[in-house]
Amino acid sequence: MLKIGLLGCGRIGQVHARSISQIDGAKVTAVADAFEAPAKALADKTGAAVMGPQDLIASAEVDAVVIGTPTDTHFDLIHAAASAGKAIFCEKPVDMSAERIRDCIKAVEAAGVPFMTAFNRRFDPNFASVQARIADGEIGGIEIVTIQSRDPSPPPISYVKSSGGLFRDMMIHDLDMARFLLGEEPVTIYATGASLVDPEIGKAGDVDTAAVTLTTKSGRICQITNSRRASYGYDQRIEVHGEKGMLRADNMLENTVEVATSVGFTKAPAKHFFLERYEAAYRAEMSYFVACVAGQTEISPGIQDGLRAQLLADAATRSWQEGKAITLE
Amino acid sequence: MLKIGLLGCGRIGQVHARSISQIDGAKVTAVADAFEAPAKALADKTGAAVMGPQDLIASAEVDAVVIGTPTDTHFDLIHAAASAGKAIFCEKPVDMSAERIRDCIKAVEAAGVPFMTAFNRRFDPNFASVQARIADGEIGGIEIVTIQSRDPSPPPISYVKSSGGLFRDMMIHDLDMARFLLGEEPVTIYATGASLVDPEIGKAGDVDTAAVTLTTKSGRICQITNSRRASYGYDQRIEVHGEKGMLRADNMLENTVEVATSVGFTKAPAKHFFLERYEAAYRAEMSYFVACVAGQTEISPGIQDGLRAQLLADAATRSWQEGKAITLE
Amino acid sequence: MLKIGLLGCGRIGQVHARSISQIDGAKVTAVADAFEAPAKALADKTGAAVMGPQDLIASAEVDAVVIGTPTDTHFDLIHAAASAGKAIFCEKPVDMSAERIRDCIKAVEAAGVPFMTAFNRRFDPNFASVQARIADGEIGGIEIVTIQSRDPSPPPISYVKSSGGLFRDMMIHDLDMARFLLGEEPVTIYATGASLVDPEIGKAGDVDTAAVTLTTKSGRICQITNSRRASYGYDQRIEVHGEKGMLRADNMLENTVEVATSVGFTKAPAKHFFLERYEAAYRAEMSYFVACVAGQTEISPGIQDGLRAQLLADAATRSWQEGKAITLE
Amino acid sequence: MLKIGLLGCGRIGQVHARSISQIDGAKVTAVADAFEAPAKALADKTGAAVMGPQDLIASAEVDAVVIGTPTDTHFDLIHAAASAGKAIFCEKPVDMSAERIRDCIKAVEAAGVPFMTAFNRRFDPNFASVQARIADGEIGGIEIVTIQSRDPSPPPISYVKSSGGLFRDMMIHDLDMARFLLGEEPVTIYATGASLVDPEIGKAGDVDTAAVTLTTKSGRICQITNSRRASYGYDQRIEVHGEKGMLRADNMLENTVEVATSVGFTKAPAKHFFLERYEAAYRAEMSYFVACVAGQTEISPGIQDGLRAQLLADAATRSWQEGKAITLE
Repeated sequence: MLKIGLLGCGRIGQVHARSISQIDGAKVTAVADAFEAPAKALADKTGAAVMGPQDLIASAEVDAVVIGTPTDTHFDLIHAAASAGKAIFCEKPVDMSAERIRDCIKAVEAAGVPFMTAFNRRFDPNFASVQARIADGEIGGIEIVTIQSRDPSPPPISYVKSSGGLFRDMMIHDLDMARFLLGEEPVTIYATGASLVDPEIGKAGDVDTAAVTLTTKSGRICQITNSRRASYGYDQRIEVHGEKGMLRADNMLENTVEVATSVGFTKAPAKHFFLERYEAAYRAEMSYFVACVAGQTEISPGIQDGLRAQLLADAATRSWQEGKAITLE
Repeated sequence: MLKIGLLGCGRIGQVHARSISQIDGAKVTAVADAFEAPAKALADKTGAAVMGPQDLIASAEVDAVVIGTPTDTHFDLIHAAASAGKAIFCEKPVDMSAERIRDCIKAVEAAGVPFMTAFNRRFDPNFASVQARIADGEIGGIEIVTIQSRDPSPPPISYVKSSGGLFRDMMIHDLDMARFLLGEEPVTIYATGASLVDPEIGKAGDVDTAAVTLTTKSGRICQITNSRRASYGYDQRIEVHGEKGMLRADNMLENTVEVATSVGFTKAPAKHFFLERYEAAYRAEMSYFVACVAGQTEISPGIQDGLRAQLLADAATRSWQEGKAITLE
Repeated sequence: MLKIGLLGCGRIGQVHARSISQIDGAKVTAVADAFEAPAKALADKTGAAVMGPQDLIASAEVDAVVIGTPTDTHFDLIHAAASAGKAIFCEKPVDMSAERIRDCIKAVEAAGVPFMTAFNRRFDPNFASVQARIADGEIGGIEIVTIQSRDPSPPPISYVKSSGGLFRDMMIHDLDMARFLLGEEPVTIYATGASLVDPEIGKAGDVDTAAVTLTTKSGRICQITNSRRASYGYDQRIEVHGEKGMLRADNMLENTVEVATSVGFTKAPAKHFFLERYEAAYRAEMSYFVACVAGQTEISPGIQDGLRAQLLADAATRSWQEGKAITLE
Repeated sequence: MLKIGLLGCGRIGQVHARSISQIDGAKVTAVADAFEAPAKALADKTGAAVMGPQDLIASAEVDAVVIGTPTDTHFDLIHAAASAGKAIFCEKPVDMSAERIRDCIKAVEAAGVPFMTAFNRRFDPNFASVQARIADGEIGGIEIVTIQSRDPSPPPISYVKSSGGLFRDMMIHDLDMARFLLGEEPVTIYATGASLVDPEIGKAGDVDTAAVTLTTKSGRICQITNSRRASYGYDQRIEVHGEKGMLRADNMLENTVEVATSVGFTKAPAKHFFLERYEAAYRAEMSYFVACVAGQTEISPGIQDGLRAQLLADAATRSWQEGKAITLE
């Protein structure tokens, strides 16, 4: 039985708590949060103890920590947990600074603790199936990857200002997905973007509509588009074109109902809320983490994956700012 | 070069003339119609001569006749054409009376002329593909056939009154399709129906909404539904469930465009007009007739198929009227 | 907090226990089963007490019972629970005999306890949405209902022999769905069937392939087909054709992945396992029951619905056996 | 009646002849080709006279010319036809050199003759519908255009060598489509490409897999991908994401048949052959040309559109060669 301490009892912490409650070999034993109410609520639900973060990390009743606190606290928590020899599951981004992530990597490697970066989309059953079938050779060598990722509506402007920008906040998921699917590291990146959804986003120095092109050494191409709005729901699609065919994962719709009228045939919109859209993915990633700590499988995505996605997001931001393609080292 | 005489220059005659103009080994050499204008128009377009029906049938410039005149004239024209030794392509129904069709069969068989009943839907590329794949064994033994056939809107009440009723006028196509797909003759039929679309149709002693169940000797089942209205276009679908899987042909939509909005994902309605929906089928059936007359393939559907469909339509009508299942001989 | 006693800790009992664990206003307080192991396992998981069925029904710690025991035990348990004044949630069929269901109705009505018949499919989000949109008038008056229901593979022959036959065991769900969607009671029924999947089923006096046609007083038509096999998964579709359009609910597929090759575009098969396919429905029906007992909504489907579905299944069986349409009183 | 002279009787010339035969207000009166056989064959079919190109252009029996000869002959034929005051329909590309196209523009404008550049895809009913609905404001302001264009298989290497490269030969269609849909001129272009399909194409200095990103002044983005292979047919899709929703046109499949087996649900592949895929588009563009010459509508796409697409293809080629984004003047 893996004893897990939850650092952060906000929305994502609650998601992880619910996932853990459905995993046979794990339970939440301790919770910590900067605020008392959410910590207490989660403790009541799970039977866990409420602790301060340092006590939680030090507790003998905690084998592994799930870090779901604000990004700027990750650095210290990772160092503390690594020192304490605890397995670490950390929300993305590991940190806003690649330099500081490198520092975390040193600490984690020195401690030899398992570290999983929470790129939940890799565990979406649809996307995971696409990747597995590519790996099985079903469509032969990869040629073109297309990723469409569009939020139903833009976040509050206050969030945008502290988000690190669309490329680091939103597209980082797609950049990780690109790496997951391409099977090779990108060697060039070109980004473009604009503020078409909300002029305030543009005034804040960010974009709400963006496109990125990645190429790999062997010539594989990936195109990504992001938008901060999509009237028809949370638009999350991938398409991989290969030598022998094409694999794609379509949106998850609200239901399977279709109405036919003089206007035509209308299916339901895509699920709107990301927690609902990726519900199965959240469950699967936590199961995977528990299995990793139990030594049943290799940890993945690891902290290096967290670093590489961040470096791509940094490069995308620079490419957009400078209006030119960037060669990645 | 097969020289074809067109008996009837109305809507369906024009469709056949256009099909013939696209077939290398055939041309329209003579046309006849009760009215001068449509005959002349078609003659101008095709270069054919305008003749009276008896002259057309007798003409040395005519090898085969296409009968597209009102149903009550078919009987005499078939007898005349058979006597003259001409190949015959005849619109459905061959006749409203099974007895008179039997009489036509005698004439045709005595003359030894090719006779094709124009069940155009057998030549629809989608439905023909389903049947061919069944015949290839792709889904193993047939178990359940489902046919949905719905007109966009009801015909004028005047037409309804002289139509012989929905089962003979509309469902006859589906009854022929059932025979085409089942691979066995039906042995029982049960029909039910109601007037839900237009009360005038009910007052005229007919139905506008109907369902039929057929069973074959080995136990195969076919369900057919008909409606005289469908807001979303001309609804024409078949589905065949077998031992190893299911084959189905979906509607042909107006185009491939889809719009996504907060309402969901909307595709175009089904094509509304039967001549457009079955354009490819009309071309294919005429090509097939020309190939049959040239001896390149067996004629099918033949005059016996015309009779059997009529007998099923008669039995369906009786089943509906009497409210009980009918055993077919 | 509604305190629920589980009668029966088999597969379906476990499903209900899991559902209850996700409902805020309810918990399992007692469990009973003819076997010790499953009862103990469920007690461990839920913190409930293990009791004998009579003690459970009598317990002050039980407000409502969930009956998931073999069908032949329902009668006594319903009577006992009604006498004890407990709310009742009962798996379908309430009983194999309509006469005995009528007896249960008397007991339940005399006791004045809430009684819900577990026709879970009414709570499937897709089917429920179709029904709600019909009720909202989205497609106007109903004309034709089509229900396709096909199991992935036949049950063991031992099960078939004690099942009451396909119409009572399998089609009863579709007969209830027909009532749910038609908005009127059926007045005629015609059934046909055959043993095409497994000859042993035929030898046991049952069918594995069947079709039913229902009509209502105003002329609405419902067609149902059932098969005990479907290579492509658990095939569960409904389609409702009305005055203004058509509403349908398609299958739930295993995932949203599509592969394109020279063969064409291939989507995943339908979910195979009924507990997975109807997972959301099981959760929703239990939530609804809890809300009913709390007086927040009308109970539905009730025990009368259980009776009517059984009467339709009986009539379908008789229609098939006698080869004729049956008029329902 | 518009009298049309066909310059070039090869594959595309025959397509145009067939289209003209179906247009009421036009006929082919003269044909010319470097080879005798195809000219004679087309003359036989249409009743046109066979002439040399200069005689054809000069003929009083020719009001308009359709130029379907090899690209390097366009320049002289355009000048001759303009001088002779004939309306001109010219296959794309107008010329491989933007400079020479500018020279043609001068000649055409000086002569004041109608000139249509044959970007047939603008007349595809699906794509035309998308553009019309955008223009109607159905999805509000355009944000992201995605164009996927993939050939079933690569052309012969001999063709590749004289084609001007993928960007000028293949992507030019998509670049024109981008202009058609974006509603604004592109101001930057970034292209990348590789030889993943056939190494011989790479050795010939070309690519067979490519991606382009365009941006417009207001920030709209267009992503295009091209591949010289697609196992599932001729892949031709567009998707336009706007303020209020998304419009897309999917592939045209070979038929509407779907088979369901344990593998899943398989639809037919996309139509393979471009002449079949764009059959309706070829008919529509010729009808439009005839209507333009008759003064019923504005000519479009005109010779300026031919130039602009060529300039984009040139810029894409340069961007790919230099590995950097290009600012368009």
